[in-house]
Amino acid sequence: MSTNRQVRLARRPAGLPQPSDFTITDGPIPEPREGEVLVHNSFVSLDPAMRGWMADTRSYVPPVAIGAVMRGYAGGHVEASRHPGFKEGDAVVGVLGMQQFAAAKGEHVDKVDTSIAPLPRWLGGLGMTGRTAYFGLLDVLQPKAGETVVVSAASGAVGSIVGQIARIQGCRAVGIAGGPAKCKAVVSELGFDACVDYKAGRLADDLKAACPDGADAYFENVGGEVLDTMLLQMRPFGRIVVCGLISNYAAIEPPAGPRNMRAILTQRLKLQGMVVSDWKERFPESREALVGWYREGRLVLREDIRGGGLEAFPQTLNLLYTGGNNGKLLLEV
Amino acid sequence: MSTNRQVRLARRPAGLPQPSDFTITDGPIPEPREGEVLVHNSFVSLDPAMRGWMADTRSYVPPVAIGAVMRGYAGGHVEASRHPGFKEGDAVVGVLGMQQFAAAKGEHVDKVDTSIAPLPRWLGGLGMTGRTAYFGLLDVLQPKAGETVVVSAASGAVGSIVGQIARIQGCRAVGIAGGPAKCKAVVSELGFDACVDYKAGRLADDLKAACPDGADAYFENVGGEVLDTMLLQMRPFGRIVVCGLISNYAAIEPPAGPRNMRAILTQRLKLQGMVVSDWKERFPESREALVGWYREGRLVLREDIRGGGLEAFPQTLNLLYTGGNNGKLLLEV
Repeated sequence: MSTNRQVRLARRPAGLPQPSDFTITDGPIPEPREGEVLVHNSFVSLDPAMRGWMADTRSYVPPVAIGAVMRGYAGGHVEASRHPGFKEGDAVVGVLGMQQFAAAKGEHVDKVDTSIAPLPRWLGGLGMTGRTAYFGLLDVLQPKAGETVVVSAASGAVGSIVGQIARIQGCRAVGIAGGPAKCKAVVSELGFDACVDYKAGRLADDLKAACPDGADAYFENVGGEVLDTMLLQMRPFGRIVVCGLISNYAAIEPPAGPRNMRAILTQRLKLQGMVVSDWKERFPESREALVGWYREGRLVLREDIRGGGLEAFPQTLNLLYTGGNNGKLLLEV
Repeated sequence: MSTNRQVRLARRPAGLPQPSDFTITDGPIPEPREGEVLVHNSFVSLDPAMRGWMADTRSYVPPVAIGAVMRGYAGGHVEASRHPGFKEGDAVVGVLGMQQFAAAKGEHVDKVDTSIAPLPRWLGGLGMTGRTAYFGLLDVLQPKAGETVVVSAASGAVGSIVGQIARIQGCRAVGIAGGPAKCKAVVSELGFDACVDYKAGRLADDLKAACPDGADAYFENVGGEVLDTMLLQMRPFGRIVVCGLISNYAAIEPPAGPRNMRAILTQRLKLQGMVVSDWKERFPESREALVGWYREGRLVLREDIRGGGLEAFPQTLNLLYTGGNNGKLLLEV
């Protein structure tokens, strides 16, 4: 293999990303400069936030430029190193882009220990996904033992970990997921106390049954009707972290927001948005905790690894927006 | 006068309260029991929250029962006292209801000093209205000197004080109000740095001009389009206190919420609901501060006192929901 296959953004999608919104190009393999490593990616991480990165709207990072390689996390092995901290063969992860090869500053990639867990897991529960669950739950929601924590997209990458950490903290963990199979797995495989199927058409009643005293904390990944319904399930002084609003991401115009805003006032709720990179200085803390729980067998981590190569990027990414994945979604390069 | 005229809730309003939703009754003047005072009300306070108290939905207080005297703040003079802390003629305020006479426990009424300010002012800026502004701004929003604080319903009871306290804290205070006359008064009489007319049809552009660097803190009294627009004006890590959502209160069904929810996530905004009674233990602190600023001439307080007696309660209350008042709305009994 002597070329570098890359996914480039060809135009800004309207609604769900389409294959025609991207071009697949084959270019030269980059030469690492002093202080850089050349990484040969094995897996790219497909994350809900990617849809936002494609849009030219105000966000926490600039949008991907038209013609540029699509931004994203990836993991692979060092093929050449011009940084003293890395040697050929090291397994690494980082924001390496949707491409086969990436040259990146050593400071921008993380070496991972594949004797602890295989590489894909370092792109999921032991990587950015796990950190997002860790800081969103423990730092923003700050649940106390005995409280009820609800998380949407509970069988998804972040949600599946949120509930497990909540359990570790002594909380009651209630998931929201789509369909009976996912809900069953959230309880039997991930150990949540309960999981409610939002597709069953009786979300409010089922949530009331699963949380008879209401929810103290809610980890929001989806938005839309689910958020609206949850606003009425929150106990007084309940906390909500807005980590994702995936139900909105494929909409051409932002959809109408929750009707039950008044509950924020009457129940004195606190909603807070989060972007995990704000906790960069504390990533070592989250890594230590997540790896610790994982090695103790207290964290079940799942990846949903798809094939088809970089050419399959758009349609595989869309599994996230249509509920088609189960656990951390990765594409094998 | 030997009877007690009272406003009673006859049925739960749909939309704006109508006169037919209430009955005006004349009953006996109550006898104060041991530990109570009999208050002859001079003014009743008309507050946006009243619409919520009429509705049978989950809130921070139980709804007013059908047939019961309408809940609300009022102020008057002690006519008879069976509490050692009060004597005949004392000026007092409290949740005394929409009625001419009320018997209330001494612990539930506050004696006020009419040598500092006339009685109506103790139902406004030196009373619950001022406290709401004080704790919502200083405790929830916690503005720092140099920050930009925006407040909606800026010529209203709470909003007009929020901006003035923000100025006292060294902040830039920007109001949102309806119509050029209100906006002009907010700047020239209340001393705000700027005021934007939401009725002018270019709210986003006018807010951008008034807050070229965006808003650090937003005190929300109205909801609806104004909140939606403000979400896009918030600086990263901006704070929003949800004190009122008056644009929703007259709606028969809760209206759709803000479309720009994604800004909560991308800008890591914090929204928090507030109900001022949560700060009950600290009311002496707010009273001392508000009276202090008022005596120093740093707080311009305005009441909008209407006549017509208790019979005029429904139509006068509705001025709040249609933007017809200017400052703290009171009804002379």
